[in-house]
Amino acid sequence: MKNKGILIVLSGFSGAGKGTLMRRLLELYPEEYALSISATTRQPRKGEVEGREYFFKSREAFEEMIREDAFVEYACYVENYYGTPKAYVEEQLAAGKNVLLEIELQGARKVRAKRPDTLLLFVTPPDAATLKERLIGRQTESMEVIEARLARAAKEAEGMEEYDYLVVNDDLDTCVEEMHRIISSERFRTNRNTQLIETIQNDVKQFSKGE
Amino acid sequence: MKNKGILIVLSGFSGAGKGTLMRRLLELYPEEYALSISATTRQPRKGEVEGREYFFKSREAFEEMIREDAFVEYACYVENYYGTPKAYVEEQLAAGKNVLLEIELQGARKVRAKRPDTLLLFVTPPDAATLKERLIGRQTESMEVIEARLARAAKEAEGMEEYDYLVVNDDLDTCVEEMHRIISSERFRTNRNTQLIETIQNDVKQFSKGE
Repeated sequence: MKNKGILIVLSGFSGAGKGTLMRRLLELYPEEYALSISATTRQPRKGEVEGREYFFKSREAFEEMIREDAFVEYACYVENYYGTPKAYVEEQLAAGKNVLLEIELQGARKVRAKRPDTLLLFVTPPDAATLKERLIGRQTESMEVIEARLARAAKEAEGMEEYDYLVVNDDLDTCVEEMHRIISSERFRTNRNTQLIETIQNDVKQFSKGE
Repeated sequence: MKNKGILIVLSGFSGAGKGTLMRRLLELYPEEYALSISATTRQPRKGEVEGREYFFKSREAFEEMIREDAFVEYACYVENYYGTPKAYVEEQLAAGKNVLLEIELQGARKVRAKRPDTLLLFVTPPDAATLKERLIGRQTESMEVIEARLARAAKEAEGMEEYDYLVVNDDLDTCVEEMHRIISSERFRTNRNTQLIETIQNDVKQFSKGE
């Protein structure tokens, strides 16, 4: 059962704790997880390091990668490209690591279309009250920022059924363990073990023939 | 997330340890699991207790239950009926318990057809050598018994892909924990949480309207 790693898409509402969950998983199980690093054409911000926050690319280099089909998914926001380079993901999966990818619904759909064995997780607060608090509770923000966040949340919510699992983030430590259990259990899915099944089926046939 | 329990079908090769796995789960997590008890028309054997090994029924009573659609599945072996009474299963599920049901491929198909949310687990030894040992290794048995077991194993193996998960029984304690993790994680499947998802979707819409 020591197979390739699983590609994991993590989506969810703003403020649901996706980033924290991923960091905790990597801290607790560094041998089992890797974080996908995106490529982008936007300028590095202060403190951002090439190959840590992003792989920074020129527009030309990025478009060349698109032509070479070198992305698991990519999209254009506010005139900048963002994408998930295939090479790094494949490398980590081959090494047996589960690769975590934090993207929104549209990206999740693209990844699943390209790689049907991707595991889609949706992070959500435990109930409406907490959700509301996390979405609109930061009193320091402008009405405009809050409204934009609510509109995005409504869009994300529409796609919840397309995900495989809900990750309910009430208590962080509990949630990290649940998430880890969900991912670990996925390794035993029959459709992730077709080769093992085929071997067993053939072996049983051989035994019946007295071999 | 305190939902109804999950109905779990456990199948697998003879000697793979299904009975032991179920007993250990019940010992370790008595609050979370219940064992489905079958009804049968065969005579009680020495030491068997009504409502523990089986619910013993007359042929007439069993056939009346069939007419009343009171079974999750039933079958006839060697002129005796065996079936899974619906009432007990529903009661346990409603109380939040996961109900374990040890049946073969044919029964598993019937249960899944009737209740698509049933979780199907297939128990298998870790590799071909162990499988062979468990299937044909008991030197005390007649060739006939061994051949019958191999023929049944070959049939069971054919249906492995129809199950949701493989439960690989190498070390018993590890296997019980893996099985428990698989079942616990299933509770977070989006298709087992459609009501929660609907609530969240509605709430997010309400927030957007400023309510």
